[in-house]
Amino acid sequence: LQEDRIDEFRAEFLEMHPYDQAKIFEEQTEETRQQIYTYLSPEEIADVMEHIEFEDIELYFSEMDPRFAAQVLADISTDDAVDILNELDINKVASFLTIMDKESAAEIKELLHYEEKTAGSIMTTEYVVIRAEETVRQAMLHLRTEAPDAETIYYIYVVDEEKRLVGVISLRDLIIAEDDWLISEVMSDRVLSVSVGDDQEEVARMMRDYDFLAMPVVDFKQHMLGIITVDDVMDVMEEEASDDYSKLAGVSDVDNRDDTAFASAKKRLPWLVILLFLGLMTASLISRFEDTLNEVAILAIFIPLIAGMAGNTGTQALAVAVRSIATGEHGKGGLAKLVAREAGTGLINGVICGIIITGIVYFWQGDIFLGILVGISILSTLIVATLAGATVPLVMHKFNIDPAVASGPFITTINDIISILIYFGVATAFLNLHLLITS
Amino acid sequence: LQEDRIDEFRAEFLEMHPYDQAKIFEEQTEETRQQIYTYLSPEEIADVMEHIEFEDIELYFSEMDPRFAAQVLADISTDDAVDILNELDINKVASFLTIMDKESAAEIKELLHYEEKTAGSIMTTEYVVIRAEETVRQAMLHLRTEAPDAETIYYIYVVDEEKRLVGVISLRDLIIAEDDWLISEVMSDRVLSVSVGDDQEEVARMMRDYDFLAMPVVDFKQHMLGIITVDDVMDVMEEEASDDYSKLAGVSDVDNRDDTAFASAKKRLPWLVILLFLGLMTASLISRFEDTLNEVAILAIFIPLIAGMAGNTGTQALAVAVRSIATGEHGKGGLAKLVAREAGTGLINGVICGIIITGIVYFWQGDIFLGILVGISILSTLIVATLAGATVPLVMHKFNIDPAVASGPFITTINDIISILIYFGVATAFLNLHLLITS
Repeated sequence: LQEDRIDEFRAEFLEMHPYDQAKIFEEQTEETRQQIYTYLSPEEIADVMEHIEFEDIELYFSEMDPRFAAQVLADISTDDAVDILNELDINKVASFLTIMDKESAAEIKELLHYEEKTAGSIMTTEYVVIRAEETVRQAMLHLRTEAPDAETIYYIYVVDEEKRLVGVISLRDLIIAEDDWLISEVMSDRVLSVSVGDDQEEVARMMRDYDFLAMPVVDFKQHMLGIITVDDVMDVMEEEASDDYSKLAGVSDVDNRDDTAFASAKKRLPWLVILLFLGLMTASLISRFEDTLNEVAILAIFIPLIAGMAGNTGTQALAVAVRSIATGEHGKGGLAKLVAREAGTGLINGVICGIIITGIVYFWQGDIFLGILVGISILSTLIVATLAGATVPLVMHKFNIDPAVASGPFITTINDIISILIYFGVATAFLNLHLLITS
Repeated sequence: LQEDRIDEFRAEFLEMHPYDQAKIFEEQTEETRQQIYTYLSPEEIADVMEHIEFEDIELYFSEMDPRFAAQVLADISTDDAVDILNELDINKVASFLTIMDKESAAEIKELLHYEEKTAGSIMTTEYVVIRAEETVRQAMLHLRTEAPDAETIYYIYVVDEEKRLVGVISLRDLIIAEDDWLISEVMSDRVLSVSVGDDQEEVARMMRDYDFLAMPVVDFKQHMLGIITVDDVMDVMEEEASDDYSKLAGVSDVDNRDDTAFASAKKRLPWLVILLFLGLMTASLISRFEDTLNEVAILAIFIPLIAGMAGNTGTQALAVAVRSIATGEHGKGGLAKLVAREAGTGLINGVICGIIITGIVYFWQGDIFLGILVGISILSTLIVATLAGATVPLVMHKFNIDPAVASGPFITTINDIISILIYFGVATAFLNLHLLITS
């Protein structure tokens, strides 16, 4: 495709799916990309850009001629155009919007208002609406003209004279219907919609539960503002899953295909440094029990076991809580029920693990009081750590604090500290009661 | 809806979306459910059953009259029917399949063959095919008749006389096309398909990347076997995200909305017991360094810090590796590149954290050698733990071992052990060199 065989290149390239076009495009040198910009129309480039990885998008738009770039943006479906603009420098966005044709610029500007992660931010304004008084034949004609531009034509939304959403009809039903029936007779007036400020996760959940391919977005007066299509929802699901996952792992961002060691270290370092300082707190805590330790050095050997169990059980509880927030299931039954359940879970697992460890330590070290000490510590630790893991993120969510702090490593370290306090507290009490044989 | 006002109940209930019907149905007592079975036709119940939670499905099918149940199953779309049958007792499945009409039973039996988590297991056989020689008009007529039964009519697949997949046309393109054009003129012959044995995650990835609403499934000779629709793919994405997440957290299954404390404890206990025993290994390891500990009790206070850092960095590396396996990105560049990157990441973070901790410990405890000891331990630990976290799951994946063992808590505990070996190893060496002041 190097030489000046433009026609051949175009024929071959345009035959491909835009996703494949984007993959090929990304592999080219800047020189070849410049050639491609001249070979293809803004509309054709727009298709490619919709499938480019976000990391590279800024580069491509900077190297295009600004007029060309503005036209590409105008040809991209509005929701994707907004996503791209969000990646660009604010000055560049302003300059693109001035060069662009007025209509597209207005549409994009409107969408740029909506807050990130809301229904408004992922919706598109390219959808098909009809009126209830039209006939099926008129609707089909309408569809034919709008089909090339609309994001989906498989749901047609019915609005009244004030653009309020009153019904929906699927293309499937439209095709089965007789030509001269009225839309009002065939449409469903039980149309589900989401509000423009709704959380994108909530939208994704609804579309998955109801198996919708698209969902209308309305304002608080039921005026239709846009639609959200299933392909955007799949991206949301992927993004949210990845977010939850990164949070549990304590990485700022887990998706780093081609990162260098340096970039990768940068993503993980912040947490590690925080944890280093939290770890120092643990160390200074233990140092307060130095007397106890000097007297019974054997106590030290169970520190990692107890801290580890606290960390693990806390992470388990955290994971369950975060997922139940993510899938919107935490509402049912409320916080009190959850706390009761987690306390119960901690108690059951604590009793079982406590009994096992008491037995093992007794047979291993021949000291029943040491066994009971470790057993009691495990029991108390498991109850407290389970509760902490589950309630911290839920309480934060309830008060609308972003539970970023509820990351796995953070909960783990908090539980480390709690468990060590419990362990040495119990041990000191035992020593004061002269129960432990000094080893 | 109690009384005998069947008509009113039917009118109200059938107006609702099947998902809402299912939610209401699940809240009823057995008595009311029995009434509902008599009020609704098997086909109407089938819609409800497609949206029921899997946990309850066995109960409902057991309480229905077997003939009725078999007919409900026959009316459910085949892919969902297979999912339901996979939940039921094998004898019950056999008896349902004998009562059912032959055609539906044959379709279901065929799908039951496919292994779980493959394309075959999530596909449906209710799709629309046409021949390339037909005209657009014929195709539309065809569509109208098949629309009520097909899982989707928005993609129509074109096959040759041997049922080999040769093309695809979207309903959108079909609507725009002139009535007397031939399908062969308007179809796209670059049709992407998946193989029946492909991993469902791979299918989900493709559909997300290409923004498809449905994807054809073929055998190794390109014969069309079924289609996979986007709603099933969303369920797959949710399921896989949940799997990865549970694995990182060390819970057998994280989705437990209405679990009792007992059920919840059962899901988490297996890991806790395994970890208890691994923790005992750590304890017995430290006990071998009892002499060192007796000499320098202060060493004990840094155990949780070092083990914690090892655990956290290992979990970070694990998370990145598991996600890159899940998103299929680990192929690029290969294992060697990844190992090099993770070693680099560990080194960079190790050096930074090591220097910080050396300084702090020196100022806190006034012992430069203790500072250096902890610093060196952190450095070595971070390198080794990062490498372990990243390579264990990748190596397992490479050898096609299910990386269930690569769970977060497991990696954490392994890294605990490694870090303690390093720490006490270095400490013992320092002691032999008489570098440490005994506190």
